[in-house]
Amino acid sequence: MRIDIITVLPEMLEGFLHESILARAEKKGLATICLHNLRDYTLDKWRRVDDYPFGGQAGMVMQIEPIDRAITALKAERDYDEVIFVSPDGEQFNQHVANDLSMKKNIIILAGHYKGVDQRVRDHLITREISVGDYVLTGGELPAAIISDAIVRLVPGVISDDQSALSDCYQDDMLAAPIYTRPREYKGWKVPDILLSGNEAKIRQWEFDQAMERTKRLRPDLLKNKD
Amino acid sequence: MRIDIITVLPEMLEGFLHESILARAEKKGLATICLHNLRDYTLDKWRRVDDYPFGGQAGMVMQIEPIDRAITALKAERDYDEVIFVSPDGEQFNQHVANDLSMKKNIIILAGHYKGVDQRVRDHLITREISVGDYVLTGGELPAAIISDAIVRLVPGVISDDQSALSDCYQDDMLAAPIYTRPREYKGWKVPDILLSGNEAKIRQWEFDQAMERTKRLRPDLLKNKD
Repeated sequence: MRIDIITVLPEMLEGFLHESILARAEKKGLATICLHNLRDYTLDKWRRVDDYPFGGQAGMVMQIEPIDRAITALKAERDYDEVIFVSPDGEQFNQHVANDLSMKKNIIILAGHYKGVDQRVRDHLITREISVGDYVLTGGELPAAIISDAIVRLVPGVISDDQSALSDCYQDDMLAAPIYTRPREYKGWKVPDILLSGNEAKIRQWEFDQAMERTKRLRPDLLKNKD
Repeated sequence: MRIDIITVLPEMLEGFLHESILARAEKKGLATICLHNLRDYTLDKWRRVDDYPFGGQAGMVMQIEPIDRAITALKAERDYDEVIFVSPDGEQFNQHVANDLSMKKNIIILAGHYKGVDQRVRDHLITREISVGDYVLTGGELPAAIISDAIVRLVPGVISDDQSALSDCYQDDMLAAPIYTRPREYKGWKVPDILLSGNEAKIRQWEFDQAMERTKRLRPDLLKNKD
């Protein structure tokens, strides 16, 4: 799988790229993530990619031309399954969307910045708009990183078997059971006896009960997604 | 405002810290964000901070002792309003939570990694659990960055007036209206005439209508929050 991220702030994501699961996936040859500086695609001699909005609103707007040139340049190299724009009013990103995207071959993610992008970008150049949550950020860089992390870790082989993504929170529309490690007692706070019992069947039942209780209490909406 | 992030992967967040709104906020003296390597707080000679889970599940679990030592060391320096753990089963982060947190003085954010943290950390050391969305990531580092970005930009003075946070998507529980900038026409795609009309009152009305139509179509649930 290949992900191309178009951004005005590639420096913001470089550390993430080199120190995360994405670096491990690249080393194993399972994923390639490329950062593209949008300013490399403008014809403006000051490398500007934004301008004032029509209609007198506050803030600056990213122009269509450099974005169109960047996407066109990438598409000339290979076919893309999706050109994603991250925006708080897009489709809600969740584990189902992550599963779906993890099966794609090539994806472009456009990270907006400033007040937003010219609407014509969204109308004509984007295939899918995704929101990582109901909050406003200074740019789409962190959401692009979130989407990349969530989908690359699902690519078979990226995380090792003993960290299997299959037992993840949400993978089966339930919250995860509580987990404990050593020491058995810390400042008087103890690990539940059942986990030390060695009775595998009872432990699995306890985990399921705990996960179900936690899901019912905290996120009953998730249970509606279950068959 | 001060945010202390405890993580096993500080390198992953350094670029973000130095190239984002957080750097600007620090320069203006309006916010301080500090990264703390959890491994600096372990007594283990190999600097290990995780161990196998009790009960035979897959994955590694972050131990309570180094986390307790890290939080205790920070609390010895100053009082904290919240000790936040980022977890997909926490309270949903949204613009209301961001507004609330932006008025706090000192916050600790614990970024989990591996399969999760010992449940006793969550039961005894954490004051608030927050989820940035219904998806699983390799760690809490990106969510910690998301929360930091969303709240620091709301601190008065961090973003300049002409990027005022008040006209943001969500700030008034509505999606934002479409925005356009030059050129007026690109590949035959035109800016709506109304935005070029110079009639301020009509433009504001058009923006409101567009925002309302978009909210009703894409996120009718947001309108329920309105008074």
